[in-house]
Amino acid sequence: MTPQQLQEGILHGAPAVRRRAMAKAITLLESTRADHRTQGDELLTALLPHTGRAFRLGISGVPGVGKSTFIEALGLHLIAQGLKVAVLAIDPSSTVSGGSILGDKTRMEHLSVHPDAYIRPSPSSGTLGGVAEKTREAMLVCEAAGYDVVIIETVGVGQSEIAVQGMTDMFCVLQLPNAGDDLQAIKKGVMELADLVVINKADIDPHAATRAQAQITSSLRLLSMHGNPEHAHHDESLWTPKVITLSALKGEGVDGFWAAVQEFRRLQTANGRLAARRERQSLAWMWERIDAGLKQAFRQHPQVRELLPRLQQDVAAGRVAASTAARNLLAAQSGQALQATI
Amino acid sequence: MTPQQLQEGILHGAPAVRRRAMAKAITLLESTRADHRTQGDELLTALLPHTGRAFRLGISGVPGVGKSTFIEALGLHLIAQGLKVAVLAIDPSSTVSGGSILGDKTRMEHLSVHPDAYIRPSPSSGTLGGVAEKTREAMLVCEAAGYDVVIIETVGVGQSEIAVQGMTDMFCVLQLPNAGDDLQAIKKGVMELADLVVINKADIDPHAATRAQAQITSSLRLLSMHGNPEHAHHDESLWTPKVITLSALKGEGVDGFWAAVQEFRRLQTANGRLAARRERQSLAWMWERIDAGLKQAFRQHPQVRELLPRLQQDVAAGRVAASTAARNLLAAQSGQALQATI
Repeated sequence: MTPQQLQEGILHGAPAVRRRAMAKAITLLESTRADHRTQGDELLTALLPHTGRAFRLGISGVPGVGKSTFIEALGLHLIAQGLKVAVLAIDPSSTVSGGSILGDKTRMEHLSVHPDAYIRPSPSSGTLGGVAEKTREAMLVCEAAGYDVVIIETVGVGQSEIAVQGMTDMFCVLQLPNAGDDLQAIKKGVMELADLVVINKADIDPHAATRAQAQITSSLRLLSMHGNPEHAHHDESLWTPKVITLSALKGEGVDGFWAAVQEFRRLQTANGRLAARRERQSLAWMWERIDAGLKQAFRQHPQVRELLPRLQQDVAAGRVAASTAARNLLAAQSGQALQATI
Repeated sequence: MTPQQLQEGILHGAPAVRRRAMAKAITLLESTRADHRTQGDELLTALLPHTGRAFRLGISGVPGVGKSTFIEALGLHLIAQGLKVAVLAIDPSSTVSGGSILGDKTRMEHLSVHPDAYIRPSPSSGTLGGVAEKTREAMLVCEAAGYDVVIIETVGVGQSEIAVQGMTDMFCVLQLPNAGDDLQAIKKGVMELADLVVINKADIDPHAATRAQAQITSSLRLLSMHGNPEHAHHDESLWTPKVITLSALKGEGVDGFWAAVQEFRRLQTANGRLAARRERQSLAWMWERIDAGLKQAFRQHPQVRELLPRLQQDVAAGRVAASTAARNLLAAQSGQALQATI
């Protein structure tokens, strides 16, 4: 299909045509072939005016916390309300294994076959930055295709949470009702990213869940006071990160979760923070891709490729100062004469 | 003075000549003029074989924690043992105010006038990356001049701690004996950087200091278990981050601090981690400078300067996808034709 046909299918196709066009468009956007990339950019630019109306929800949590069960329960709850739900993923391990946390659709057996749900596994190649870019673009395709909520799932390890927080309107962290976990999450800086913390599997040990809720709530309060002294006084027009408990397996508390999300969306829309966050995210995304592109062009430059191995050895061995090596490599790329000292 | 004269003065000059050559060399290295930069690189490369024998000690702590008093007490303690001590600083606020945490040498009134001490304030212009680069280069000058210990001070806020940890052999965090502070430090991720935590002003409230020591010790243990599961079992050849208490004002505990530093140095030298850390730091430094240089060249490119303002607006307003804008700007810099869609 041409970009025009894909665009037409995504925007106006009948359900089956639309779904097929979405899959083909995302595959086109994932391609690294230059001609595909040009077609992909053309398609993206055409779709862009039709994006931005969905709510972008990030969900993170370590393996075993029950993310799939939760997303399935949430997705079905939203579909029952007449909403269309897309689920995407960023799985940093997929870049190594080629596998994906969402590759096995049977993990969400009811949601995955529902006509109002669209599930796509994590892109499985490239750097985290590259994977995140493809997921962002897939999100735009889903939005243009009329999905109301785009859920972006990631595992609770590494830098992938920062990537997901950086492309969603609201970032939720799933936790187990395990008192020791809160420090782990604080350590990794994830709690600071969270707009909402969800303690799942609360039915297994309700007392532990309540204790964890209190602990994490007080940690979040401390973090927000330290991070933003001006927020120490409560301002009702601003969202304050919250902690809720639920049991996705029993379907208990999913309605409360969605109520919290809607309250977040209402507040952040009214106070302008949702729009500001998206604007900031778009610009950060642009600069992140520029940085990646500059570095790639640098590493592929013939002069740099010739000089780099020896200079890296010299720097590691302490024979050449790092800053001197950097200046000489930059000069080599820009075609200037090398300095006499090298 | 020519680079050769500076080199001669730094390596072989009598004390007064050496000190003057050091100051002039560091000023030369701080200059952004292209001819100065060429001379500076020549000098650095000549000095490099004479560097690396000093111990590089990073000291961080929020204002009021007593950093100056501590560094003065430590410096005089080391000088009494026959060592020569250099004190440098990275002060992120100096890039805004032009002032510096070490600008006022009267803060260390005995150390600053001692012939075996060399104190230099933070460079006061440019980005944090630029300031850090100049401080690294000043550190190499001090090492070539025969200083045995180079202390790099920074305030306990922002990214400057990461910069200092990234250029020193050992990173120490000063804390007040205040129980609430530990979470703040964990939050900022600083505790994870610390090889040694020092609870200063322990004389004011010894009980609070002991309590803080126990709390932070247990936090560090949790962090190290989570961060490095393979270190959960104690390995005597590896350094385990420690927490000590002292009173710099009364001079109590400074000998214990230095004993811990020497133990760290002995262990990390024997197990190879000190050398590995320096190698990693040098390569990271090189890439950090390359990144900064690539971005600067990009922003200064005429085509980019022409296109960037409008594209930034388009991206912020959601008219052009961030990745599309990035690709078009990169193409503009490399002289390729712009795509038809823009």
